[in-house]
Amino acid sequence: MTSDWQRRCAERKQAQLESIPAEWIIQCPPDNQLNVQDVPAKCSLLSAHELEITDTVDVDVILQKLRTAEWSSFEVTTAFYKRAIVAQQLTNCLTEIFVEKALARSKELDDILKTTGKVVGPLHGLPISLKDQFAIKGLETIMGYAAWIGRYADSDSVLVEILNECGAVPFVRTNVPQTLMWGETYNHVFGRTTNPFNRYMTPGGSSGGEGALLAMRGSPLGVGTDIGGSLRIPSAFCGLYTLRPSYERLPYCGAVNALEGQESISSVLGPMANSISGVKIFTKAIIDSQPWNKDPLVTRKEWSEKEYKLEYHGGGKQLCFGIMWDNGVVKPHPPLQRAMAMTKSALEAAGHKVVDWEPHRHLEIYKNSETIFAADGGDDYRIQCELSGEPVIQTMSPQEDAHESVMDEPLVKSLVGKPYHRSALELWQLHKEKRDLRKSHLDYWQATVSRTGTGRPIDAIISPAVAYPAVPHGMNTDSFYTTLCNAMDYTTSVFPVTFVDSKLDDPHPPHEFYNHEDEAIYKLYDSKLFDGCPVGLQLIGKTQEEEAVIAMTEIVDKALKNFKMVKGMS
Amino acid sequence: MTSDWQRRCAERKQAQLESIPAEWIIQCPPDNQLNVQDVPAKCSLLSAHELEITDTVDVDVILQKLRTAEWSSFEVTTAFYKRAIVAQQLTNCLTEIFVEKALARSKELDDILKTTGKVVGPLHGLPISLKDQFAIKGLETIMGYAAWIGRYADSDSVLVEILNECGAVPFVRTNVPQTLMWGETYNHVFGRTTNPFNRYMTPGGSSGGEGALLAMRGSPLGVGTDIGGSLRIPSAFCGLYTLRPSYERLPYCGAVNALEGQESISSVLGPMANSISGVKIFTKAIIDSQPWNKDPLVTRKEWSEKEYKLEYHGGGKQLCFGIMWDNGVVKPHPPLQRAMAMTKSALEAAGHKVVDWEPHRHLEIYKNSETIFAADGGDDYRIQCELSGEPVIQTMSPQEDAHESVMDEPLVKSLVGKPYHRSALELWQLHKEKRDLRKSHLDYWQATVSRTGTGRPIDAIISPAVAYPAVPHGMNTDSFYTTLCNAMDYTTSVFPVTFVDSKLDDPHPPHEFYNHEDEAIYKLYDSKLFDGCPVGLQLIGKTQEEEAVIAMTEIVDKALKNFKMVKGMS
Repeated sequence: MTSDWQRRCAERKQAQLESIPAEWIIQCPPDNQLNVQDVPAKCSLLSAHELEITDTVDVDVILQKLRTAEWSSFEVTTAFYKRAIVAQQLTNCLTEIFVEKALARSKELDDILKTTGKVVGPLHGLPISLKDQFAIKGLETIMGYAAWIGRYADSDSVLVEILNECGAVPFVRTNVPQTLMWGETYNHVFGRTTNPFNRYMTPGGSSGGEGALLAMRGSPLGVGTDIGGSLRIPSAFCGLYTLRPSYERLPYCGAVNALEGQESISSVLGPMANSISGVKIFTKAIIDSQPWNKDPLVTRKEWSEKEYKLEYHGGGKQLCFGIMWDNGVVKPHPPLQRAMAMTKSALEAAGHKVVDWEPHRHLEIYKNSETIFAADGGDDYRIQCELSGEPVIQTMSPQEDAHESVMDEPLVKSLVGKPYHRSALELWQLHKEKRDLRKSHLDYWQATVSRTGTGRPIDAIISPAVAYPAVPHGMNTDSFYTTLCNAMDYTTSVFPVTFVDSKLDDPHPPHEFYNHEDEAIYKLYDSKLFDGCPVGLQLIGKTQEEEAVIAMTEIVDKALKNFKMVKGMS
Repeated sequence: MTSDWQRRCAERKQAQLESIPAEWIIQCPPDNQLNVQDVPAKCSLLSAHELEITDTVDVDVILQKLRTAEWSSFEVTTAFYKRAIVAQQLTNCLTEIFVEKALARSKELDDILKTTGKVVGPLHGLPISLKDQFAIKGLETIMGYAAWIGRYADSDSVLVEILNECGAVPFVRTNVPQTLMWGETYNHVFGRTTNPFNRYMTPGGSSGGEGALLAMRGSPLGVGTDIGGSLRIPSAFCGLYTLRPSYERLPYCGAVNALEGQESISSVLGPMANSISGVKIFTKAIIDSQPWNKDPLVTRKEWSEKEYKLEYHGGGKQLCFGIMWDNGVVKPHPPLQRAMAMTKSALEAAGHKVVDWEPHRHLEIYKNSETIFAADGGDDYRIQCELSGEPVIQTMSPQEDAHESVMDEPLVKSLVGKPYHRSALELWQLHKEKRDLRKSHLDYWQATVSRTGTGRPIDAIISPAVAYPAVPHGMNTDSFYTTLCNAMDYTTSVFPVTFVDSKLDDPHPPHEFYNHEDEAIYKLYDSKLFDGCPVGLQLIGKTQEEEAVIAMTEIVDKALKNFKMVKGMS
């Protein structure tokens, strides 16, 4: 018997399908076609011009063409919308679809430019996709909970307000996992999102809808959020660039969230894109809008050209990077090791220094964070689910055709222990512990000044975002590399490096395993299975180093591109 | 029978007395001499030159003379130390006394300047007093708890580390109330601090030792902390300037604290001084030292000359102030009303605009804050007291000669209700409520743009810090005006305006009382009793407006001084 919540979810999913213009429904390839990135070009829904628009990854270029009216916002928005709908049919990456509203907005912007000769703002005419947390007036905000179906927002979230002032065109919202606290993307309302590089694989999460959409080039710029890796995991799994800013640099006010009111380790929002230019443009545009006048929690700090020019990092002339080859908790898969070696060579070839970064109290920090996230004993999730009667999802594994697992439960369960509801005083003790860990980690980092030879501590750390490339649905357990940055509040980017190549990335002989999860992850590796999946890395800066992290990511990205060109690699 | 904790407290107090050089013990005036500010000049401990040094309130002037070696750090430190010891004998304002250590440090600085011709830093040679939270390596940090006697710090707090790098001379630590959560200053170890303007009165708290010391001119610059008014209450009661910066602009790391790990409403540190120049110099020096490299929680934001020049406030040419004549919870005493009227006239005379500020959800905000502070049901205090067996102090009223009270219990008790230990999830709900209140208050403030005529919202709010001037010991209950700023994280200063004048400040006829505490406070007023006590006000800016708030306080201070000169007032 279908229960009420199941019926409501099915109806909502049907309504979503009906919100797609009939002429945009394509003939989908068979389910066993795993890589679907060629479909937009082949499905004949998009014109050659629309393919040209949507294949433009440099957001600067798109904005330039919009500003000069070479491309209208209407045609750009239409092109990306069509491709987003193609992506939806292949990877199930969307939640809210509102074609008319977005196209009307794009026309309005075209009219303003035509009439006044002026753009509305720095993002004039640009369609932007948003994770299913950023409330838009008049639309539902469901965020993967059956009970939230029918919750229409009576005002825009501050981010949406600012995007509108900047001239952007919010045009779709994207899928998330129930509770947001998974590194994959599945919920009872909108279902499961798959990875366009290989649909057997997860795009990661919780900003996994964005990951899949952007990997399909169904959006030039997306906005996700990150409390333990939710921007970085999908970016790494989908070959994208992202920035996890530090707490409260960008305006979260008015967005819905899980664990609302949990302020010990704050979720942050950030851009995801196919180019670092998208990351920079978004971050600068939002900060330039003085978001502290609308969101009381946002840091009153202007975009700093001084910091972007790396004045605290010797002007960027000779940087010293520390590579975290291994965090001592989970050893990265061979393609990740190759990506780090490649990045090291590329940086050295570009005249920078590279030293090893030895992890510092990594597991302690992770345990503290995970204990904080579970301080309510899971009550917040239970309460939201009980409102509709839907069960709290216990696994991201599909019921059918699940990849074989070799792990009973992830390490985090034994670290945090049996869930129970902690008291305010217990939470305060966790805060004390966290402060001490932050101080210890910062001092450790500062002390590297003795071995860089630049007169400065290590400028940034390069590390995996996740120990592996995109994994089969239900298999993503590792957030050890990402959570470090949330706990320490280090500003962190992700950039794509390469793709798994079964010819280059043979399995390594087993090492002495750190724990049972490390062993399970080791055993998961299969160079054939992962072949062709993107491999990305993190660049970790210090707290509130948004400008410097973007600038250093540009340097790394350029070094990698030059290096690959010289070596004839992809 | 004397219990163990009482014996330990008495021994520690005796040790404190013995740490005073015998030749600095003065002949004290009788206890019934209430105002003791004339004693330093009359007691013959300080030479004329030492009186000249210590009567210099402009910290800029002192630093200039130190930099040019016109005054040595040794003579300046000696002069202030003597005066601090006089203050101690009259008001009991000190905790740690370490004459030798401080004088040795001052000599070291003199030697460096002599040898190298260079100052160590921007605070070269300046003695600075510190609230009893700022750990100094090798000294005890007792913070008003019997159990903490004998706790020697094995490292400097980050603030002390930075002060040393800036060339300052930390020279005394100052008294606090047990738990820090009182607006007065009394504990079982060091006893009660009194107000040098009138020893029948409290200097306020919790930075009350600083308040009394600075009012005695026993220090050129002091550092206190503030979580609900603890910098501002003593500054208002003692005729001082202070700045409550926003959370995490200045480095708190390594200082001891009450409710440690409570991060919902963070305690902040700030300067207290007899001049606004002291406030600016301290704040700029600490920020210029890049404290984020030592304290991971400090905001990476340089001192902004742009913000100090009031570029977001029309260059400061015509500011619009909002006066909060009354917060709707407790009506200010007549001298406070006169001080606000005076400030209004002075600002208008200086060409600025002044409009009324109607309070917005004031009591709701207060209730949210106080509920957060009590989220552990008082466990933190109990635990610290149980370590020694000392009781948790229930009243700041002296056991003997207490001023007659007309109030059974303050309003806060009924607002917060019976104390109990809240859960993490309950705390998160309080955070949600607080975020909504902050958004609401910010939007309300921004909306004043419609009535200022400047094209900007109100630039700053002027309000009482406390509804009354310094009150008799045990009578200070009002933190309604101050806590608003902690909850909203508004950067706030206090500046002195005038003194109670029994000839000008007649009692007003009773108004319709807002609540029983408002009534009790109304009845407490007696123009004779309060005669001669300082009257200060708050200047409230927005979050992280440290530079702008200092600049606007300078403008108000100058306007008041000009106004008083023209009118021949004091």
